[in-house]
Amino acid sequence: MLKSFIEVDSDSHFPIQNLPYGAYETEQGEIHLCSAIGEYIVDLFVLDEEGLFDGSELNNQYAFQDSSLNYFMSLGKPAWTEARNTLQSLLSADSKILRDNTLLRQRVLKKRDEVRLVMPVQIGNYTDFYSSEQHARNVGSMFRDPDNALLPNWKHLPVGYHGRASSIVLSETEIHRPKGQTTPNNSQQPVFGPSQKLDFELEMGFITGPGNKLGHSISVQEAEEHIFGLVLVNDWSARDIQKWEYQPLGPFLAKSWATSISPWIVTIEALEPFRTACPEQNPKPLDYLHQTNRSTFDIQLDVLLKTDNQNEPHRICSTNFKHLYWTMAQQLAHQTVAGCNVMPGDLYASGTISGNEDDSFGSMLEITWNGNNPLSLPSGEQRSFLEDGDEVIMSGFAQGNGFKVGFGEVTGRILPAIE
Amino acid sequence: MLKSFIEVDSDSHFPIQNLPYGAYETEQGEIHLCSAIGEYIVDLFVLDEEGLFDGSELNNQYAFQDSSLNYFMSLGKPAWTEARNTLQSLLSADSKILRDNTLLRQRVLKKRDEVRLVMPVQIGNYTDFYSSEQHARNVGSMFRDPDNALLPNWKHLPVGYHGRASSIVLSETEIHRPKGQTTPNNSQQPVFGPSQKLDFELEMGFITGPGNKLGHSISVQEAEEHIFGLVLVNDWSARDIQKWEYQPLGPFLAKSWATSISPWIVTIEALEPFRTACPEQNPKPLDYLHQTNRSTFDIQLDVLLKTDNQNEPHRICSTNFKHLYWTMAQQLAHQTVAGCNVMPGDLYASGTISGNEDDSFGSMLEITWNGNNPLSLPSGEQRSFLEDGDEVIMSGFAQGNGFKVGFGEVTGRILPAIE
Repeated sequence: MLKSFIEVDSDSHFPIQNLPYGAYETEQGEIHLCSAIGEYIVDLFVLDEEGLFDGSELNNQYAFQDSSLNYFMSLGKPAWTEARNTLQSLLSADSKILRDNTLLRQRVLKKRDEVRLVMPVQIGNYTDFYSSEQHARNVGSMFRDPDNALLPNWKHLPVGYHGRASSIVLSETEIHRPKGQTTPNNSQQPVFGPSQKLDFELEMGFITGPGNKLGHSISVQEAEEHIFGLVLVNDWSARDIQKWEYQPLGPFLAKSWATSISPWIVTIEALEPFRTACPEQNPKPLDYLHQTNRSTFDIQLDVLLKTDNQNEPHRICSTNFKHLYWTMAQQLAHQTVAGCNVMPGDLYASGTISGNEDDSFGSMLEITWNGNNPLSLPSGEQRSFLEDGDEVIMSGFAQGNGFKVGFGEVTGRILPAIE
Repeated sequence: MLKSFIEVDSDSHFPIQNLPYGAYETEQGEIHLCSAIGEYIVDLFVLDEEGLFDGSELNNQYAFQDSSLNYFMSLGKPAWTEARNTLQSLLSADSKILRDNTLLRQRVLKKRDEVRLVMPVQIGNYTDFYSSEQHARNVGSMFRDPDNALLPNWKHLPVGYHGRASSIVLSETEIHRPKGQTTPNNSQQPVFGPSQKLDFELEMGFITGPGNKLGHSISVQEAEEHIFGLVLVNDWSARDIQKWEYQPLGPFLAKSWATSISPWIVTIEALEPFRTACPEQNPKPLDYLHQTNRSTFDIQLDVLLKTDNQNEPHRICSTNFKHLYWTMAQQLAHQTVAGCNVMPGDLYASGTISGNEDDSFGSMLEITWNGNNPLSLPSGEQRSFLEDGDEVIMSGFAQGNGFKVGFGEVTGRILPAIE
């Protein structure tokens, strides 16, 4: 097994097999791109400046001199592979370049808990899909008809909608409770005030590389070439605002006030060893969505809730990325089939990921069945939806043989609405 | 009346009273910001380089050295006012700085029809509202119930949805017919192919300046301070794709393949003389949407259609911006009330603008009543929706006393779907 000269615990999310991408603020206040290994971040700006990314794809590209990954992501898969190979080689146990150069090591490796991570990508466009069958069935059962929980289009196309890009924030950003119009007691006279049905949504999202020109499309077979990597996504929602506003054009303010993502983008290459089967699709989708050798990734996902009265976060959901009905390749092929252009740095989120069991539902809406079965916490507290002070912690990893490839966490704490 | 030393026809959209903002490609292939007067564009980069924007707000800001207006727009209203006053003064009949300096004039003024205009703003976020009551009534009557054409929320909030920013293009960009899933004959078995119900939507949109921080909001009374200017918008739509995909999350691929905007952004200041009354609102909206001294602008809007078999474009719609039920200030207050952050360069479009008469409907959907009453053209042709080769031309202007403040045109021609 590949080993680094840096000691990495077997429970760490960041062994040499992972090497995710992020960004941090240097002591001088500059933004540098970075990777992670064990307890350290790896400054990619410094490595690039030293000419250590000198392969045929990256030579003189200065791909890591920007303050965001967008340019590097636009270079495409050959450049990504080369950067990964270079980085893995520089950090491997038997490579002297970093290991035996104290000065360079000090400039490149910083303790992860001593730096501030920042948004590593300029997200220009954001789509939110709705690709978990169990989630769509839960919502359809709750609000429509348990016998016809899925709408007629659901198994024919990956339903999705345009999300708001400006309000995507990094993990740890504190989130103010949104205000808006709601209709308590199903009246048609709206009232204005802080949302009373504040929710999280456990999702994952992929970030795109090169993309396509307007009017053209990306085929389902070539789609993965355009996927740079994945992040954890908490797509915060205000269920009561959504209920009143969403007809006929879909969720708007209910979803525009915050979407939190993990600081680390884990690449498709790091996830390759964790490919696994996806759910069968019946009916067979139309040709442009028909993917041969369909596969997904085995990524364990957990949601923990911490209230002000608890010392420890309490796990309230445990599920897996592999349950999604539509693959990322199918989502991307669908996104572009009418000619929509995908750009480097776009975010495409999965929609809430729920499994079949009650303890695998990815939102409070489903866990408490729209507040009808409040959740009991070890502290004795109950929750129908999120309250001020509550912190939601999502984490995800793939389990290898003796190592994990993980995403770290995406966390966020709810602050009261601003007066 | 203020006059320029440059001759401007009384029918021109670009007198000294207008001075809209745009961008063009120089002979050297650089992008320079510009304004327009009569038959000329005015190179703002050169004027800025010459130190001619030297007032207290713009001094050493280099606001016109960028290739987009975003930075200038972020500076806010005092800077916008100063730039406008400076430009108006430089171009006025009695100012010698430009008028009497042949060399500078040659560097600054170029024939508009000899330059290529380009996108003057990086649009980070795009919202499309649905603010024309007549349009919402037409659509509701067609697809739901003529007696309950408006949904219950419509008069309580400006309904809107997140649009796709990447596919916003400049006027004159040719547009490929989109492909997608449709369900002819109301079957629930979708088929794949080029859209058969390709439509335009006559809209206007405003582009924002400074904006607000995440979690905060912009009050309806201060909202206009954040509005830089307006553009014409053609929000191309595929009605048959939309019908199948849009439940429950709203329009997605039907609206993501192209949105065309006019190359000129006309400022709120240039439109001030054309303020006029808006439709009364009943019921009175909630406090956060209650705007004292509500007003809008009197902007005449026309849509012309040119087919391959016509020599001249034929007018198919004539309406006015002033018909919109919700004002821009109300739209912006609503957009931010849940804490969504608005950024410099965002686009907020009105939704299709229709008047009360049959010849004032802003889409083929309404003009032909979903294809049931095809439109007859002078060439003898008929149209239910747009066909390949058709060109849609939208124009808009406000009529002053002896001058027009206009937007020019937004045009687009339909090309066949790409194989």
